[in-house]
Amino acid sequence: MQYVRFRDPAGSIRNGTLEGDLVKFSNVSYRMEEIDLLAPVEPSKIICVGKNYADHAAEMDSEVPDSLMLFIKTPNTIADPNTTVTMLRGKERIDHEGELAIIIGQQCRFVSEENAMEVVAGYTAANDLSNRDDQFQEQNWVRGKAFDSSLPLGPAMVDKEDVPENASIVVRVNGEVRQEGSIDQLIYSIPVIIAEITEYITLEQGDVIITGTPAGVGPLEDGDVVEVDIEGIPTLKNTIRIPE
Amino acid sequence: MQYVRFRDPAGSIRNGTLEGDLVKFSNVSYRMEEIDLLAPVEPSKIICVGKNYADHAAEMDSEVPDSLMLFIKTPNTIADPNTTVTMLRGKERIDHEGELAIIIGQQCRFVSEENAMEVVAGYTAANDLSNRDDQFQEQNWVRGKAFDSSLPLGPAMVDKEDVPENASIVVRVNGEVRQEGSIDQLIYSIPVIIAEITEYITLEQGDVIITGTPAGVGPLEDGDVVEVDIEGIPTLKNTIRIPE
Repeated sequence: MQYVRFRDPAGSIRNGTLEGDLVKFSNVSYRMEEIDLLAPVEPSKIICVGKNYADHAAEMDSEVPDSLMLFIKTPNTIADPNTTVTMLRGKERIDHEGELAIIIGQQCRFVSEENAMEVVAGYTAANDLSNRDDQFQEQNWVRGKAFDSSLPLGPAMVDKEDVPENASIVVRVNGEVRQEGSIDQLIYSIPVIIAEITEYITLEQGDVIITGTPAGVGPLEDGDVVEVDIEGIPTLKNTIRIPE
Repeated sequence: MQYVRFRDPAGSIRNGTLEGDLVKFSNVSYRMEEIDLLAPVEPSKIICVGKNYADHAAEMDSEVPDSLMLFIKTPNTIADPNTTVTMLRGKERIDHEGELAIIIGQQCRFVSEENAMEVVAGYTAANDLSNRDDQFQEQNWVRGKAFDSSLPLGPAMVDKEDVPENASIVVRVNGEVRQEGSIDQLIYSIPVIIAEITEYITLEQGDVIITGTPAGVGPLEDGDVVEVDIEGIPTLKNTIRIPE
């Protein structure tokens, strides 16, 4: 099943399902062009894993971290699928980073690796847009990672079972493949990530964890169309606007 | 005026005012022992300024940063005034950091320094509890700063006019003064902080900015009582619980 949030023609925000080309809510079906898809959840926080693919760590001139590397994106970063996202003015380098996103299904803390999958409601796709100009200057990546609209998310949450363990993850810019990997390349697995985070932090229903990006990140230009395509999840697609 | 959130005897959460020893809501007055004070707001995010007092930067063996240093605390960090806060198990050093907190009064972005005070609803007190064991190992201070209950906040939001420009800030542990400073020692002023953050990030009504801590931070032990006392703001008081 594929779960979506959307704004219906009357402007009401609904939780529905995506079935083929139709969005369904109760006994009403909408065509895509009648509604606006929204990010599938409204997280209280987004916990992010850095350098979780060896090839990406290498391209950033980094070692694979010897413990799970975490950072934070705030709710203002969330952007809806199929939108144009306005980036920061005057930056040299804002990069795409396609990532598998975990959606948490229940409030939880002190979750063991063994029980971790029980707190996962499902998966979606994310684009962890990154302002390298500031990120490379900061101790904590706030300007670099937590700026407005820097986390396009969606378009649908899918059941865990629908994403194979070796699901492919591909990022295209204007139709051209830029990032390519498989989620079985994650250095720290999903259960390890959840256990480590919840050692410190209570996760709420609807909170999001993004799991890291494979190699191939690169700068975006005004008008670029970025697609994050993860096997089993509908494609996340956004247009980048970089103001003059 | 001093504004509080509290849980009334029936369990309802109310926004009221603090008048002497009484908490007032509509035409009802409660004695302190009848109600539970709560953190005065429920922020979507907390943006934090690091090393914003020269004497604290020095005690941390750091230079004063050449640009505003930011980090993030998430909503799970918020703890209520007058509570016992349970810290992480097995850490060597969890420190108190008393800080002036700014409460944002309206959604805003691209706020100029000139207009910054217009978006400030008021001030309160904060204790930025910090897990140094992990903080000193991390690129981004997530385990170090965003763990549960690491931000006691309150007990009341006061009007801007009630906090003098050179207000004293004092932190006591078990009645003994540990940190002492004045908010006119802030390296980056409140308008500079707000202008810089909103260059990147939309602030929402109720969001919180904590402005940095003066020298004297130090480790806490199980049972310690920490008070953050800022001129013009009622004292924030919490008991620290460090599980065996």
